[in-house]
Amino acid sequence: MEIMEQVFVIKIGGNVIDDPQALEKFLAAFAAVEGPKILVHGGGKIATRIGDKLGIVSNYKDGRRITDDATIDLVTMVYGGLVNKQIVAGLQRLHCNALGITGADGNVLPAVKRPVGAIDFGWVGDVVTEKIPLNNWQALLDHQFIPVLAPLTHDGRGHIMNTNADTMASAIAVALSARYKVRLVYCFEKKGVLESVEDEQSVIRNMNRNAYAQLKSAGKLFAGILPKIDNAFAAIEAGVAEVLIGHADDLVQNTSSSTTGTLITA
Amino acid sequence: MEIMEQVFVIKIGGNVIDDPQALEKFLAAFAAVEGPKILVHGGGKIATRIGDKLGIVSNYKDGRRITDDATIDLVTMVYGGLVNKQIVAGLQRLHCNALGITGADGNVLPAVKRPVGAIDFGWVGDVVTEKIPLNNWQALLDHQFIPVLAPLTHDGRGHIMNTNADTMASAIAVALSARYKVRLVYCFEKKGVLESVEDEQSVIRNMNRNAYAQLKSAGKLFAGILPKIDNAFAAIEAGVAEVLIGHADDLVQNTSSSTTGTLITA
Repeated sequence: MEIMEQVFVIKIGGNVIDDPQALEKFLAAFAAVEGPKILVHGGGKIATRIGDKLGIVSNYKDGRRITDDATIDLVTMVYGGLVNKQIVAGLQRLHCNALGITGADGNVLPAVKRPVGAIDFGWVGDVVTEKIPLNNWQALLDHQFIPVLAPLTHDGRGHIMNTNADTMASAIAVALSARYKVRLVYCFEKKGVLESVEDEQSVIRNMNRNAYAQLKSAGKLFAGILPKIDNAFAAIEAGVAEVLIGHADDLVQNTSSSTTGTLITA
Repeated sequence: MEIMEQVFVIKIGGNVIDDPQALEKFLAAFAAVEGPKILVHGGGKIATRIGDKLGIVSNYKDGRRITDDATIDLVTMVYGGLVNKQIVAGLQRLHCNALGITGADGNVLPAVKRPVGAIDFGWVGDVVTEKIPLNNWQALLDHQFIPVLAPLTHDGRGHIMNTNADTMASAIAVALSARYKVRLVYCFEKKGVLESVEDEQSVIRNMNRNAYAQLKSAGKLFAGILPKIDNAFAAIEAGVAEVLIGHADDLVQNTSSSTTGTLITA
């Protein structure tokens, strides 16, 4: 049996980006993760704050943000410039050889503009997972670059597009699974999937499809977590070895063999 | 004799960035340049326009911009985000595999904060040419990535710094000269160094140190061009094979063997 090299695809959300102390702590943990790794970061609220100052009004339809021309320029600046480069400089300080890019750079994440249906989301891109150029990713990883991805892609026609960081991380994990054993790590504000929402310590440490079905039918799981778990199983279905849902503070344990978050496998 | 591979290090200034039509024309020419190439871009006036809206006042001392905390965040957003990614998306559209980075990414341009002398320039970085990691550059070039550099570096202590694009291009060219035959191409608004400022067609097609000394002592050259030529000879002194000064529109010719701009050699 061929032993595949392990790669971690780690996603952090805006809550960590928005909190300088939490971010510094996270970056130290990320820098300490051994082996090939990729960081995908969300945007955070700073884009809204800067947009307010620039007079760019956030448009929402059915609770979803619409990315018009002014907004895509705003998030390209803030996510692709300010947030991404601050993370890169912070990691370089820790001798972690971060390379901050978007899906447009090196065409690492080909995407298409979301078709206009009931809602026109504007400049929002959906990654075309099967077109991800594995050789470009492998070239970066082989040379010990640590890719740090802002939640932006391109449409191949000259436009940058806003892209959901969770699905970007999942698409990268799925594509890399053809050559690597991938653990996709979602950092969020809880220690893992909880058996009892009131009890922060009731983390379900391991979950497979059967256990999930049982927990769901018993009505034990908090509704808000179900889409995350469904996405995790979709990634596993598509070839990802393991998905870990856990707290940003627990990253070092959650990238080891003794995880403290929820480890989801087939 | 060992034949070194040729690499073009091409610098464009803010005047091209600020003019969408000129930029599109330039990108088409850049995409058509054969072989390994690197683009270094300036910032353009858009940072000032966005800074004005954000209430960030540009500070100047003795005609030089001071980069305070608010200004470095501004240029990190605008140069590293908006401008860099628009160039990348534009090149990707032309099937040119652009990878947009700063000197912080992959630590490709280690730099130090400019020491506080008569003037405290703030977050301004000077590249430490002898510390440039050639292996990182070669990894990118070997895998046919086309690096596109925003005029930003990092200090290794977690800070992004504003950096002059001309000197960045020169530092890259000097470092790469250890392994490649480098032609450093400065695109500007004239066809080359002119023998007569009034005559746009009086381009001096070839210049070496002797010719320069003669032209200078004859008082033929426009004073404004002298620093550019001095920098060119400094790069050549440090190992760069050729420096070309020419118009952005003439890039294709100026990266061939039949140049129309001013080709400067030892």
